[in-house]
Amino acid sequence: MNFCSNCAAPIVVKTPPGDHLPRFVCERCGSIHYKNPLLVLGCVPQWEDRILICRRAIEPRRGYWTVPAGFMENGETMQQAAARECMEEAMAQVEMGSLLAIVDVPGAHQVHVMFRARLYQPVFGPGPESLEVKLVTEAEIPWDDIAFPSGLFTLQKFFADRAAGREDHHFAELRGRFKPGTTSMPEPA
Amino acid sequence: MNFCSNCAAPIVVKTPPGDHLPRFVCERCGSIHYKNPLLVLGCVPQWEDRILICRRAIEPRRGYWTVPAGFMENGETMQQAAARECMEEAMAQVEMGSLLAIVDVPGAHQVHVMFRARLYQPVFGPGPESLEVKLVTEAEIPWDDIAFPSGLFTLQKFFADRAAGREDHHFAELRGRFKPGTTSMPEPA
Repeated sequence: MNFCSNCAAPIVVKTPPGDHLPRFVCERCGSIHYKNPLLVLGCVPQWEDRILICRRAIEPRRGYWTVPAGFMENGETMQQAAARECMEEAMAQVEMGSLLAIVDVPGAHQVHVMFRARLYQPVFGPGPESLEVKLVTEAEIPWDDIAFPSGLFTLQKFFADRAAGREDHHFAELRGRFKPGTTSMPEPA
Repeated sequence: MNFCSNCAAPIVVKTPPGDHLPRFVCERCGSIHYKNPLLVLGCVPQWEDRILICRRAIEPRRGYWTVPAGFMENGETMQQAAARECMEEAMAQVEMGSLLAIVDVPGAHQVHVMFRARLYQPVFGPGPESLEVKLVTEAEIPWDDIAFPSGLFTLQKFFADRAAGREDHHFAELRGRFKPGTTSMPEPA
């Protein structure tokens, strides 16, 4: 951040009175521009004993596999965001289920929230951000080619819970390396 | 947002190619400035059969009661954010417990996440954003003077679960009126 988005004056980095952290401050109009963590919402869409995964058509991690997930937008709920991302990336309609994983990625300034979901019908296909979308059994998961650590954690917990007949939720903190210049998704640790 | 925070050129609102929503776009340097929901983290700090609540010293809802909560910062986990807010607003050290409430407030572009917590000792006091901090039993909760609907939902679920001997997590979607010009906390519906 170089300039004030309100009045276009140069920004200075300083701790405002009464605050405890340095912020992007405009000394002309007095605006304080806060930067806060972003929510990434996703789901594990299930059809019978298989789940839907997507092969990424975009960087970072193009060509690697992921569960459908992406940045939550203003005006939607978390469940709506997860369902929208599933429609955009996998062209699949889902009913959102229970909370599965909450993954803090502080180095990337993100929190990833993952739900269980069910496909209404086995209808899906690659959206613009996917090269390929497919239904796979647990044995068919490409474990060595999962795009992001939060997706790996999510899939591991999904299958462990399913085997145990449970639907728990799971926390993780991933201190993956942050690669600047990407869309700010974390690289694998 | 009036000006590009990267290069100070005037901003236009338009849907970028391949996107599906209008964004703040700089036609000079090509920057796209996304606006996404913010996370508010809080907790219900418990000491024996009582919980800690704070009377707000700041707007919105000055003078009303709340659980300690506030905006999550970059670089921290959700649990760290909730503990920090408890220290800032109630000067109390807590051990974070189980997930209690996840409240979507789409009109305010916020998601509120609340945990159960335990005070290490019955030591607390008003931080700069609080007029008063006190330990109360369920019967002493000022139900008519709770600052925000998400806090009300959180407290109701906390006591209902405690009575039932459970520690569940609960979702809510609050479509409260958004009052511009405040710190963007939602007004009661």
